[in-house]
Amino acid sequence: MLTDADVERWLREDVGHHDVTNDVPGETTGRLVAKESGVVAGLDAATAVFEYLDCAVETPVDAGDRIDAGGVVLRVEGAAKAVLRGERVAVNVTGHASGVATKTRAAVDAAASADTGSPPRIAGTRKTTPGLRGVEKRAVAAGGGDTHRLDLSHMVMVKDNHVAEMGLVDAVEHFRERASFATKIDVEVETPVDAPRAAAAGADIVLLDNMTPAETERAVDLVAAADADALTEASGGITVADVPAYAETGVDVLSMGSLTHSAPTLDLSFRTG
Amino acid sequence: MLTDADVERWLREDVGHHDVTNDVPGETTGRLVAKESGVVAGLDAATAVFEYLDCAVETPVDAGDRIDAGGVVLRVEGAAKAVLRGERVAVNVTGHASGVATKTRAAVDAAASADTGSPPRIAGTRKTTPGLRGVEKRAVAAGGGDTHRLDLSHMVMVKDNHVAEMGLVDAVEHFRERASFATKIDVEVETPVDAPRAAAAGADIVLLDNMTPAETERAVDLVAAADADALTEASGGITVADVPAYAETGVDVLSMGSLTHSAPTLDLSFRTG
Amino acid sequence: MLTDADVERWLREDVGHHDVTNDVPGETTGRLVAKESGVVAGLDAATAVFEYLDCAVETPVDAGDRIDAGGVVLRVEGAAKAVLRGERVAVNVTGHASGVATKTRAAVDAAASADTGSPPRIAGTRKTTPGLRGVEKRAVAAGGGDTHRLDLSHMVMVKDNHVAEMGLVDAVEHFRERASFATKIDVEVETPVDAPRAAAAGADIVLLDNMTPAETERAVDLVAAADADALTEASGGITVADVPAYAETGVDVLSMGSLTHSAPTLDLSFRTG
Amino acid sequence: MLTDADVERWLREDVGHHDVTNDVPGETTGRLVAKESGVVAGLDAATAVFEYLDCAVETPVDAGDRIDAGGVVLRVEGAAKAVLRGERVAVNVTGHASGVATKTRAAVDAAASADTGSPPRIAGTRKTTPGLRGVEKRAVAAGGGDTHRLDLSHMVMVKDNHVAEMGLVDAVEHFRERASFATKIDVEVETPVDAPRAAAAGADIVLLDNMTPAETERAVDLVAAADADALTEASGGITVADVPAYAETGVDVLSMGSLTHSAPTLDLSFRTG
Amino acid sequence: MLTDADVERWLREDVGHHDVTNDVPGETTGRLVAKESGVVAGLDAATAVFEYLDCAVETPVDAGDRIDAGGVVLRVEGAAKAVLRGERVAVNVTGHASGVATKTRAAVDAAASADTGSPPRIAGTRKTTPGLRGVEKRAVAAGGGDTHRLDLSHMVMVKDNHVAEMGLVDAVEHFRERASFATKIDVEVETPVDAPRAAAAGADIVLLDNMTPAETERAVDLVAAADADALTEASGGITVADVPAYAETGVDVLSMGSLTHSAPTLDLSFRTG
Amino acid sequence: MLTDADVERWLREDVGHHDVTNDVPGETTGRLVAKESGVVAGLDAATAVFEYLDCAVETPVDAGDRIDAGGVVLRVEGAAKAVLRGERVAVNVTGHASGVATKTRAAVDAAASADTGSPPRIAGTRKTTPGLRGVEKRAVAAGGGDTHRLDLSHMVMVKDNHVAEMGLVDAVEHFRERASFATKIDVEVETPVDAPRAAAAGADIVLLDNMTPAETERAVDLVAAADADALTEASGGITVADVPAYAETGVDVLSMGSLTHSAPTLDLSFRTG
Repeated sequence: MLTDADVERWLREDVGHHDVTNDVPGETTGRLVAKESGVVAGLDAATAVFEYLDCAVETPVDAGDRIDAGGVVLRVEGAAKAVLRGERVAVNVTGHASGVATKTRAAVDAAASADTGSPPRIAGTRKTTPGLRGVEKRAVAAGGGDTHRLDLSHMVMVKDNHVAEMGLVDAVEHFRERASFATKIDVEVETPVDAPRAAAAGADIVLLDNMTPAETERAVDLVAAADADALTEASGGITVADVPAYAETGVDVLSMGSLTHSAPTLDLSFRTG
Repeated sequence: MLTDADVERWLREDVGHHDVTNDVPGETTGRLVAKESGVVAGLDAATAVFEYLDCAVETPVDAGDRIDAGGVVLRVEGAAKAVLRGERVAVNVTGHASGVATKTRAAVDAAASADTGSPPRIAGTRKTTPGLRGVEKRAVAAGGGDTHRLDLSHMVMVKDNHVAEMGLVDAVEHFRERASFATKIDVEVETPVDAPRAAAAGADIVLLDNMTPAETERAVDLVAAADADALTEASGGITVADVPAYAETGVDVLSMGSLTHSAPTLDLSFRTG
Repeated sequence: MLTDADVERWLREDVGHHDVTNDVPGETTGRLVAKESGVVAGLDAATAVFEYLDCAVETPVDAGDRIDAGGVVLRVEGAAKAVLRGERVAVNVTGHASGVATKTRAAVDAAASADTGSPPRIAGTRKTTPGLRGVEKRAVAAGGGDTHRLDLSHMVMVKDNHVAEMGLVDAVEHFRERASFATKIDVEVETPVDAPRAAAAGADIVLLDNMTPAETERAVDLVAAADADALTEASGGITVADVPAYAETGVDVLSMGSLTHSAPTLDLSFRTG
Repeated sequence: MLTDADVERWLREDVGHHDVTNDVPGETTGRLVAKESGVVAGLDAATAVFEYLDCAVETPVDAGDRIDAGGVVLRVEGAAKAVLRGERVAVNVTGHASGVATKTRAAVDAAASADTGSPPRIAGTRKTTPGLRGVEKRAVAAGGGDTHRLDLSHMVMVKDNHVAEMGLVDAVEHFRERASFATKIDVEVETPVDAPRAAAAGADIVLLDNMTPAETERAVDLVAAADADALTEASGGITVADVPAYAETGVDVLSMGSLTHSAPTLDLSFRTG
Repeated sequence: MLTDADVERWLREDVGHHDVTNDVPGETTGRLVAKESGVVAGLDAATAVFEYLDCAVETPVDAGDRIDAGGVVLRVEGAAKAVLRGERVAVNVTGHASGVATKTRAAVDAAASADTGSPPRIAGTRKTTPGLRGVEKRAVAAGGGDTHRLDLSHMVMVKDNHVAEMGLVDAVEHFRERASFATKIDVEVETPVDAPRAAAAGADIVLLDNMTPAETERAVDLVAAADADALTEASGGITVADVPAYAETGVDVLSMGSLTHSAPTLDLSFRTG
Repeated sequence: MLTDADVERWLREDVGHHDVTNDVPGETTGRLVAKESGVVAGLDAATAVFEYLDCAVETPVDAGDRIDAGGVVLRVEGAAKAVLRGERVAVNVTGHASGVATKTRAAVDAAASADTGSPPRIAGTRKTTPGLRGVEKRAVAAGGGDTHRLDLSHMVMVKDNHVAEMGLVDAVEHFRERASFATKIDVEVETPVDAPRAAAAGADIVLLDNMTPAETERAVDLVAAADADALTEASGGITVADVPAYAETGVDVLSMGSLTHSAPTLDLSFRTG
């Protein structure tokens, strides 16, 4: 969750010790306006910024809404000093989060447009901007994506080095014993033939790492043939352009680091008065 | 500056309360490797992450160095638990900062390639990712860019609303009296003809806001003709592709929000052993 | 995870502004000794306290080890000032965590002693001491228990009020759509007959709330009869004395708030020299 | 004192990055209800939690009041999202503090029931849960107990190792010189005959460490016979069951670590609507 | 900027864990009254303290106003508990800041009274009280002084050791390349003859370090003769008594560490009811 | 106690986001040197600053030592970057603390020189600089002064408004019941005749508020005549010049806010190499 301590840190790094342009009397209003179309996110963060500064905030749109250029994302009213102090931070965080949501929505749409009955979920990863894990995960959700694991404690990832050390079956067993019943286990495999083995060993999810669409499809089919319950997940440098090809493999989840680490901002501006 | 408190926040949001895969004995080594070429930045942040975890760090490259795919950015040695705990955060922050540096370098190179004797400085803005102002500003510098004002207290920006309220000359005078002698004054103008007026009024820098290259050139020429000392700065949605056209106007500074708010990560991976 | 900021807070609240008894020259050693038998936990926290104070720490036992009265839990060496400053906090946190681990082990042993082929997991809850979520969850694990959900974002809990509002099937469906594939869904039911309905609706776990052992057994049987995959969990004021009766119902998990909110400390003392 | 930073830490550890069950519209009310009788404490902390979340709070009882099963401890009104977010933390902290107050009251009542004209004060110690020093000390006070020294700087404790090193009289003198006139001095003795010596040396309080009731009585009598002004304090593993025997010795203070480190929670539940 | 975290820290260090005198019912009012005449500053900090405690604040004077003994600086209304809790911290911070402003005003007045057409600016330095950089810099401004550089990143200071290492011209060039166009460069010189050299090398400001008024005048004249644009600044142990002599040298800026590190408090008292 | 969080805050406010002069290779040494004579304090804080930056620190003097101009207070060795980064903060905090210690020593010496057998203790107050309570209290102790109450929870102060409301005897009784046995009670009186009444009512200390030396002497004599045990304390705008006159009254304690709120810094400089 976002706290006042986060907002304080954001404001403090932007304001410095003495801003002579901030000595402004009276009240004012302002609005955050989209300069291009996209999907809105980060409203909770922008709201927290202005509320920390004792301004009243109203949000005519919800996280996840599509907005056109010219659309108003947030309205604020308060002391002119406070509004001016918060505007840059509010634009920065909302633009960033909305950029993530917009990119996520593009990937979700690409998956939906693929020739497949049941398109895969588009998921984020742990490749987030330091300090903004929650903001970006909620932006992925706003874009229609799946947050994937939120932190290391949320889901167990059995990695190739675990498998190298203990063997696939023993590695899964090892972590099954140590993980809570509340925690799923995602097992990374490097080749299609290992996918059904991981499923049989008890993986909740089989992560198909750095496979081509063709390899991915083969792995998905092998898991299905093995009549295992596990979900399949493709991961490894998948771009929005790659989504349709992967979507058609029948894989359940596509996870994409670029949703959070390489999404351009959504262009927003703040207008007072 | 970066503090332990920043590192703690980054690690805490990534680790959660109980990561069962982190119960690993012994020591290990690891290295951060580039998967694509680019300009390195954020080494101080990655170093701080691993040093907080009591690992020894060595950086074979410096911030600002160009690196090829396969190049090693950082080596680390320490308790396996600690190395594993730090790796994702270190990749995320270094990848992000290096992405900013790489994009900045591209803009700097574009400016240098323009047909002009003295290419403009490529500068960042306050459009940074909340919580990462310092990391991103230092990444801009690593990429060969100019950090521009670091926070609101660093340089006075006289904006269009100040001018609307007080008039150009009075607004500059108003802030000249209130600002420290240590602080420069940057005055935003909307039309070329206002540029020399701002310079005459005492601007250290005249910001040419949202002007086309042709308008920018006209403004630059007018300032030069007025024999004023002020620097000129072009700003407003300028992309790397736009840089050459602006560079040829003779403007002194191009400031680009996209250096920080829309730079894709530099693809890095962490390899243990 | 535990951070220096946690340690600072613990030390600061214990030390105050000016402790005249802390002006002690030289080096000393100390050891944390059990005054009664139990299961050790919290060693990471005690280690963090002394390492923050630049002392060297050695732990002859591991978290989860049983220790007898007189056994040494931790040895420390450093400046006498530092050792004395850390001792009370180290005893307090280790005693508390070990108390949780010891109580958990008693519950686990009670479950194991029940007349059942496969005893249930003994799990903690979110009823933890504010500020010590991680310390206590790791202590539950050290005691042989299951950490259960670590925070609200770790697992979805479909509660009676959700069911009242949307109906059982719709409520599960509602959250299934919103939850990540990485996240399990635990559905609370008030009567045995609702248990198989919840399982059929897609619950990963069915929480049998405030049921007697007989009701619990009935619910477990109904879920088994329905051939559903879901785990069953009993919860609601279950004490260590109640564990055998519940264990014999065949339920998969017993969750007990008292493991964390009502565990007496394990009696430890700190001896210098 | 409790700060917003404490509340933030408690909420953050409980919420995580993305709680999909918290997307609830509208306003709601809730109340914290006792499921068993006891003494209430921690209301300031629960109030701080809900007020941080912008909810209105009303407390029909005061800290220190006895409450019966079914009694309402606190009412709250606010956004449903906010109320749900705060409820678990509020229950945890109030339950814990009330558990401490209830245990303290039991010890105070045990002392009052002893056959003595002037029952001893029941006091806490520094054996508190890390991070909750203030909450627990105020809970001891709510239970009718004495908070004893709040931190190391509050009162000087002359310990056996000081006496071993400097001798009893010199040790007291040593710290009398260094301590403020605002600070009392408590001197720990191991045998009854040392008690009047400590009093004569200038102790404000003589701590009778790990003595039986008979030894305690002897020490108290010796101090009285010496016509010294010092208070006497018994300490060392005293349980509530031991209180009457110690109370009858005429000692002034009984200090008990178990008030804070081993008090079971007071069972509370939170009900919405 | 000042944050709630600052206020929390100030209150926490003053309150401790259990203040038995703070159990006061009802509402009250209070006012901060000057006991001697001076210049007011720190109102933003005092306001932040009381607003953190949910009190209403009104300030009949502005930062920078001169006040006579008996004048009211701030009025507050709120819960008696809250008002009492905040009063000491509010007095301490306002008294300190007003002391800085008052001393600054005395220096400004001394400069204005000197026999010179254009008196120098009186500026602070980085010699501020740790933790109070912003409060003290804004107090200097309130006193009519110049804040000088706010932190190391605000303005480049080329020091004697840089000059010793690289030579004057190269040192200035070295930092001119590295500093942003937004950042001024202040070059420290030890002798009057180096002053015009520094100006010619590109210094925005030439700092005349530890020179007598006569040396200062000589340096100022040399810079003027060189027709350089640079400002001149005198620094080094200058007291208020020294101001007139330096003011008459024609130097542009006098910087004085004593404004912040040696200003006695302005005597204020807080009166309730 | 001082924590890393304090040091981080001090460094962060002084450094800002990008200090281009800090890019210095290699190792260096430095020393903190007194430029005038005085009493040293704050060494723990300066040490903490440099140790946070991984420098080795040696202190040839102890807190409380008198030092002459030219004397070395602290030596440091480490990365040149780190030494340069810490120097200003280290000078600021040590100069400030040493200023407090030096002023305290002057007051202590003034008391000792008075014509009285047993000079009063010179004590600080709660009138400290926000954020530096501990640093300043320890500096008072280093100067030979008495720290007085460290925070509101350390000692109960019965103020004139309490007396006005409840009467003197009842007010003392009221707080005697509520305060711990570990806590002393200081009762403020406005007239000499109330002094013995306060002592009789059970005050540990009687604070003679704003009395002249003659009134103070009268109050002291009345308390002595009443054969009460209470200490007497004089307070209210007492300067170092006033100390001898008050010292001769026989009062036990003189408390002086000016020790902390109006002590000029001790002039120190930092020299590298």
